[in-house]
Amino acid sequence: MTLDRAGRRPLYEQIKEAIAAAIESGGLPPLTKLPPTRTLARQLGVDRVTVVTAYNELAAEGYISAHVGRGSFVLDRATSSWAAPPGLRAPADWTAHNLNREMMRMARRPDIISFAPGMPATDLLPVDAYRLALNRVLRRDGPEVLQYGLVEGYPPLLTAIAAELAAMGIEVEPGQLLITSGTEQALALVLRTLLHPGDTVLIEQPTYALVLDVLAGSGVAVQPVPCDENGVIPGALPDLIARCQPRLLYLTPTFQNPTGACMPLARRQQLLDVAARHDLLVLEDDVYAHLWLDAAPPPSLRALDRTDHVIYTNGYSKCLLPGARIGYLVAPAHLHSLLATAHQTLDVSASELHQRALEMYLREGRFAGHLVRLRSAYRQRRQAMLESLAAAMPAGAAWTRPGGGLYCWLQLPLDGPSATTVYLHALDLGVAFAPGHLSFPPGTLETGGSHHLRLNFTLHPPATIATGILRLARAWQQAAGLRG
Amino acid sequence: MTLDRAGRRPLYEQIKEAIAAAIESGGLPPLTKLPPTRTLARQLGVDRVTVVTAYNELAAEGYISAHVGRGSFVLDRATSSWAAPPGLRAPADWTAHNLNREMMRMARRPDIISFAPGMPATDLLPVDAYRLALNRVLRRDGPEVLQYGLVEGYPPLLTAIAAELAAMGIEVEPGQLLITSGTEQALALVLRTLLHPGDTVLIEQPTYALVLDVLAGSGVAVQPVPCDENGVIPGALPDLIARCQPRLLYLTPTFQNPTGACMPLARRQQLLDVAARHDLLVLEDDVYAHLWLDAAPPPSLRALDRTDHVIYTNGYSKCLLPGARIGYLVAPAHLHSLLATAHQTLDVSASELHQRALEMYLREGRFAGHLVRLRSAYRQRRQAMLESLAAAMPAGAAWTRPGGGLYCWLQLPLDGPSATTVYLHALDLGVAFAPGHLSFPPGTLETGGSHHLRLNFTLHPPATIATGILRLARAWQQAAGLRG
Repeated sequence: MTLDRAGRRPLYEQIKEAIAAAIESGGLPPLTKLPPTRTLARQLGVDRVTVVTAYNELAAEGYISAHVGRGSFVLDRATSSWAAPPGLRAPADWTAHNLNREMMRMARRPDIISFAPGMPATDLLPVDAYRLALNRVLRRDGPEVLQYGLVEGYPPLLTAIAAELAAMGIEVEPGQLLITSGTEQALALVLRTLLHPGDTVLIEQPTYALVLDVLAGSGVAVQPVPCDENGVIPGALPDLIARCQPRLLYLTPTFQNPTGACMPLARRQQLLDVAARHDLLVLEDDVYAHLWLDAAPPPSLRALDRTDHVIYTNGYSKCLLPGARIGYLVAPAHLHSLLATAHQTLDVSASELHQRALEMYLREGRFAGHLVRLRSAYRQRRQAMLESLAAAMPAGAAWTRPGGGLYCWLQLPLDGPSATTVYLHALDLGVAFAPGHLSFPPGTLETGGSHHLRLNFTLHPPATIATGILRLARAWQQAAGLRG
Repeated sequence: MTLDRAGRRPLYEQIKEAIAAAIESGGLPPLTKLPPTRTLARQLGVDRVTVVTAYNELAAEGYISAHVGRGSFVLDRATSSWAAPPGLRAPADWTAHNLNREMMRMARRPDIISFAPGMPATDLLPVDAYRLALNRVLRRDGPEVLQYGLVEGYPPLLTAIAAELAAMGIEVEPGQLLITSGTEQALALVLRTLLHPGDTVLIEQPTYALVLDVLAGSGVAVQPVPCDENGVIPGALPDLIARCQPRLLYLTPTFQNPTGACMPLARRQQLLDVAARHDLLVLEDDVYAHLWLDAAPPPSLRALDRTDHVIYTNGYSKCLLPGARIGYLVAPAHLHSLLATAHQTLDVSASELHQRALEMYLREGRFAGHLVRLRSAYRQRRQAMLESLAAAMPAGAAWTRPGGGLYCWLQLPLDGPSATTVYLHALDLGVAFAPGHLSFPPGTLETGGSHHLRLNFTLHPPATIATGILRLARAWQQAAGLRG
């Protein structure tokens, strides 16, 4: 950075603009820590107040987040989908919604114990059994397994999934299914195909962050539905429906992300009654259904639906093969072909080899045994996390005891530091989590999730979980100014 | 179907509405052949004129396509993206744009020799070498290969692709690359992220059908650029730019789909000059670059670009691993992060296992040898197709002699039957192709592609190609009424 000391522009402004330009060009990528004001002042040969002023301006304009005594970090404002829709305010101190990408990266750093990403434990993925299935298919089918697949999916896999669904009480013909590149794509497909600018979609609050990302900037209004510890409150729907005329309701009735809530049977039936009475389309995300730990959840909405109001999506990313990108949709007949066409314009088809190998794996009857092993390990990990939280968290913190799924939902003391402030300390101390505000739509609730953390309790063995939670407690203490 | 003979509604109307309802409910799926009028009249105990009237009404309303003497077929009107944008007219006798899905299905029927799909020959895919790479990676990396990958892609694969691109004259850092689920997804990503309703995009005419599908109903105006046998004519651009202020130009300079045109070097440089002078963003689809048969094509636009106006996309679907769904993007720095965020909302990441296995395959240096074998076989197949066409096609037909890529572009005599009419006869006789109108934007040219066929010359061994082209010639003769 070279300053024009003879020019008429103030030095602080020149510094500010040089840094802003570096951020906009990508020279200073998001989450870069800027040099301390004292250091930069010395390097540039200017007064420290000049640098502080420049930093304050950058923070006011949303380029950086400044935390007194902890340094300043580059925010991802250019690409933040929170920033995209006009008229919506970014959360007070954190605009990086694609922090998700950052979290995936953190999860791979060996020095960080990450509870952040929404993925299952790597060490429990059945790589040996899947390798056998892959090789059987490669030998049996030859080069065909490398070819493009059908848009709808590999027919025998459709049949296998229909059988799996039948065991879950969902009666579908294979022809009603549509294989997608992960459940994530199924959601994007439904939301982008069925919703148009000006439409309203009802969601749980908090909800799955990716869905907010898909909808950001689409012109679709996001309307939260009142929820309690059992999920969406059906009684709140009729008023909302009358007021917003929503196009659909997106929800995860079983082991919700991030709260872990599981809707009881009676409430599921009430919800379906409301949907039928008001002709409300429901998009059910059932991706955590297999991951129950105490008792099997009630039947899915789709299993209980008698009036064809439920689009059902599930997949194998949260319990078996995250990287294979295999999910699926069950849609009412009149929507199936529309969604299949839209699928083709997204990426033609899911991986043919993975579809065939998964079908082989399922046919060999390995899935049930894998789930039994997974549940047993996840129970131990859940216990380790609950015990560690009880031992380490400050007074005033509260957390859920999940009956399944991947997440523990933790609320920090509301009079202490926010989750995003704690996050920066946590990275320094070698632990990561998903800040709660990612699960709240922007603008609907100014402080939504500001003191919440989503902790994936499945990712590490018990001893590592205990270490990570201790680091987290220390990060909170640092952020609260209790120790340095 | 039960008719109310005592009611006041005419019988033909009851028949029409029963069939329309069956089509709308999916009971009669697209391309279903309706019973002959004579047969249905006998079954229902009505006069044949009653059924003919019902069929005529259905055809007039776009439910079915009626071909005198050949029967009536259900059209896919509900889901046709051609029908979506208001104000655009569907092609006269064929509205099923998602005929693409149908073509994929046809390609798997053993009784049909299909030249239709845009995929490489199955029999030449290197399944043995790839199986070795898969197993090496599974043994080396363990369960990690089944986990979610990074949104940007598997870092060593990014490095390997950067090296491959360097050999093609394209200098990129691995960090500038973004792996996508096939080149198809790369195109969808760019088009959906950078274009907004009201924007105009310039395209070649004819162009890649999927791009028209991605844009259909998006509110983006599609403006064809004048082309000749060497592709886009740069001199035509300034006027168009002044008139339409396009957001970008999408093109395939090398072995274009469907024409096979390859733009000469001088024209590439002229095009880049225009892009730089008018600040026009260019989306270059280079997916056929490796498939040259006579001489290597000129450097890509991206290799020649000195002003950062080219977004480059390529992948492995047309020459190596169609079903693995691995493509990639090279975007100017200021767009990379935006596209990466959008990628995450589409399907998180491409298959991690395939990315690692592909990296292993490339690292083992197998790709070059595979391409040599592919070119040798494709040359034979091209020759078989050109010779068969010369022997069998009617006077007045004309076709290209492709220097690479996958396609031969055939024009039927303009005073004879249309390509879609021939298509129906062809299916009966056991041969399939891609009707040319799929490559033309609706509304811009009423008869665009009406007598064109896209023939993939790579899919079958020479003897099968010869048989298929003979069947095609017979289908044309039938459609022309020359023999029955």
